[in-house]
Amino acid sequence: MGLTKSPYRGTRDFFPKEMRTRQYIFKKMEEVSELYGYEPYDGPLLEEVELYRAKSGEELINEQIYSFTDRGNREVAIRPEMTPSLARMVAQIHREVPKPIRMFSIPNLMRYEKPQRGRLREFWQYNADIFGAGQFGEAEIIQMAVSLLRSFGATHEHFEVLINDRRFVDLVFEGLISLDDVSTKKLYKLVDAKNKMPSDKFSSEVKNITNDEAKAVIFERFVQLNTIDDIKSFIADFYHSKTAAPVSVNDNVAPLYSIFKTLEDLGLGDYVKFDPSIVRGLDYYTGIVFEIFDKSPENRRAIAGGGSYANLLQIFNEPSLEGVGIGLGEVPLTDFLTTHHLLPDFSKAKLEYLVAYLVPEAEKCASELASKLRSKNHKTELFFGEAKPKKIFSYSEKKNISKICFIGEEELKNNEVRIKDLINKTESIVKIKDI
Amino acid sequence: MGLTKSPYRGTRDFFPKEMRTRQYIFKKMEEVSELYGYEPYDGPLLEEVELYRAKSGEELINEQIYSFTDRGNREVAIRPEMTPSLARMVAQIHREVPKPIRMFSIPNLMRYEKPQRGRLREFWQYNADIFGAGQFGEAEIIQMAVSLLRSFGATHEHFEVLINDRRFVDLVFEGLISLDDVSTKKLYKLVDAKNKMPSDKFSSEVKNITNDEAKAVIFERFVQLNTIDDIKSFIADFYHSKTAAPVSVNDNVAPLYSIFKTLEDLGLGDYVKFDPSIVRGLDYYTGIVFEIFDKSPENRRAIAGGGSYANLLQIFNEPSLEGVGIGLGEVPLTDFLTTHHLLPDFSKAKLEYLVAYLVPEAEKCASELASKLRSKNHKTELFFGEAKPKKIFSYSEKKNISKICFIGEEELKNNEVRIKDLINKTESIVKIKDI
Repeated sequence: MGLTKSPYRGTRDFFPKEMRTRQYIFKKMEEVSELYGYEPYDGPLLEEVELYRAKSGEELINEQIYSFTDRGNREVAIRPEMTPSLARMVAQIHREVPKPIRMFSIPNLMRYEKPQRGRLREFWQYNADIFGAGQFGEAEIIQMAVSLLRSFGATHEHFEVLINDRRFVDLVFEGLISLDDVSTKKLYKLVDAKNKMPSDKFSSEVKNITNDEAKAVIFERFVQLNTIDDIKSFIADFYHSKTAAPVSVNDNVAPLYSIFKTLEDLGLGDYVKFDPSIVRGLDYYTGIVFEIFDKSPENRRAIAGGGSYANLLQIFNEPSLEGVGIGLGEVPLTDFLTTHHLLPDFSKAKLEYLVAYLVPEAEKCASELASKLRSKNHKTELFFGEAKPKKIFSYSEKKNISKICFIGEEELKNNEVRIKDLINKTESIVKIKDI
Repeated sequence: MGLTKSPYRGTRDFFPKEMRTRQYIFKKMEEVSELYGYEPYDGPLLEEVELYRAKSGEELINEQIYSFTDRGNREVAIRPEMTPSLARMVAQIHREVPKPIRMFSIPNLMRYEKPQRGRLREFWQYNADIFGAGQFGEAEIIQMAVSLLRSFGATHEHFEVLINDRRFVDLVFEGLISLDDVSTKKLYKLVDAKNKMPSDKFSSEVKNITNDEAKAVIFERFVQLNTIDDIKSFIADFYHSKTAAPVSVNDNVAPLYSIFKTLEDLGLGDYVKFDPSIVRGLDYYTGIVFEIFDKSPENRRAIAGGGSYANLLQIFNEPSLEGVGIGLGEVPLTDFLTTHHLLPDFSKAKLEYLVAYLVPEAEKCASELASKLRSKNHKTELFFGEAKPKKIFSYSEKKNISKICFIGEEELKNNEVRIKDLINKTESIVKIKDI
């Protein structure tokens, strides 16, 4: 028979090359987060299903979650996202710690999805969240995300941050178009899917959902808004023609103007763009929402998404504490970095020394030398068993080794080592005590 | 109502303090492994249950595994250990890569256990394995484990490596005592449990299992062996009195003498000790086996265990390739380091700068300064909103900040910043362009 050598569908084996790539990416995430004062955390791999039921969209629970009943009869799930665990943790500590609370994590998550480019069943996701900082937090999270991508060498030629505001979207969907809840939800979904369907299909869907010519016109105007300046004329046009009094229109639009001003002050004007189609589905967002897109036509997809949420602690009977978060998947990020040739070559390990002995009597001396080199922080491999130099050279080439230390009969007698530098093509004889 | 704020039983929330501790531990594991030329890998969180059924002890599958049926009707399990995944991965590559193959990983694993000190349901485990290196690999794995513990500041006063050999155990259990398979398995289990029961209970169990006075005597003598030198007289005594011809006695004992010689040559004589009770249960080991024990009477437990195995690739229909591995749990390691006061204090983040503005007009200047400091690799937090110095000082103290940069009306006018060094208790005024 023989078992399969393949990993479970939608998951990956990380061989050293892939693992070093992952380590490189995670290290940047940690470094940039810590530069901004974010602190590391992690939660459990399993949570009770109830936690996701209380928070997430129905689709996630019903179709995408890995849930099962444990041996103690608890309904549990492998975490499909990190925010609910974070909310649970912040609910424990928010009374004692100084605000704002800045946290980041790089958990492995699982979702039962059809594996495809940029989407797998098991993946890692960078999460950064700030609590108790209001609009300052929104700008900082976006700024930090840009810093992170820039730390890989990416610029505004490679990616853009598309921004919208759920308060503005609600103003239009609930205030201006004002359909029932079910139809409003359908509109949200439709906007999300806009770029994935032909424009005539989109228009007919709009008509179906609104079931009203005038409302469809408002909606079509909305999705065509291009800059935040367009919003002014849009609002002027429709509020002028409406009989109902505009309810707190300014309150719902002002934050959008404000965040663009702040981001421009931060020198991020080239990176950010208003986009009415960013609504973040049926998620729990209540303020600014954003997605980061690869600009390459070959890989036109979201690398990250996030926004403001006000009510995540309520499910724990805690007072509301506004948060802003971002989730950035390691799978689309790796695709992004690969598309733009921003990943170093990690196919081989970097080994400094190979210590080899040519006669059996030199074994002890060789292993002592290897220990000594390691104690001085040199990555060192000991070649096991005595071997011919030819074999050792071919091994060293395959393993990307920089220097070989040979100990033969002569060297052993003189307490010396012959060092071949394979990069500079030099050779030297050194007393072992001088290393 | 309100959901629970507690993590799922047997799992942990890693708040920043615990997470920084974990990062510190994992970083040492990575550094030491790479010093020895081990390369990083990772496998999937889920594997098909078949993989564990083919390899592991029945107890693990039946009682301890988190298994369930996925939406595609596959029987899968959250990995309870890493070695089967590694074997699956090595089966894919062993023909192409140069030997020995050195690999390490720090996966999160889950087992359905009764949570207790040193044992949780979710835990991380350092795994290092070497394939195709024979007895050299056994010594290197043990040497590397000692290096790892020494890198935390531990010495032979804190821990010891107890070593045995499955070939020697088999010689005694199967060759000398020669019971049926079921009873032999029971003897293995009994040895494993020896230190957890009173000696009279142990003796009566031995008599029950062997059901033979002479065999019980051999067994009691065996478990009392203290040094490898004792083995000589033990063998002389029993083979002298036996009528059957000793089958390859030397072959089965020689490797034990050999590894102790090698480990002494490596300067590890103070760390290693022969212990007949180390048999590693019903596991897949076929050669040297070892466990690393905390020497403290307060925390007398195994931190790590491992050994040689020859046949792990066979379940994939691949030729056998001998391997040596170690598993070291992060939970008992943390207990060990805590017991011996070897963990630094990670309760607070290390933040270098807090940038604060005292008038609203200075906000932009302050955020530019924060960006500049970060671009020079200083961990910097921006204090949001204008605030009184008193509040900023108390915040800085709570957050363990080293220096505060104040920008008030005066400083803004002069393009300056006032820097308070909270550690050295000094204050200076610096031109912003000079930072």
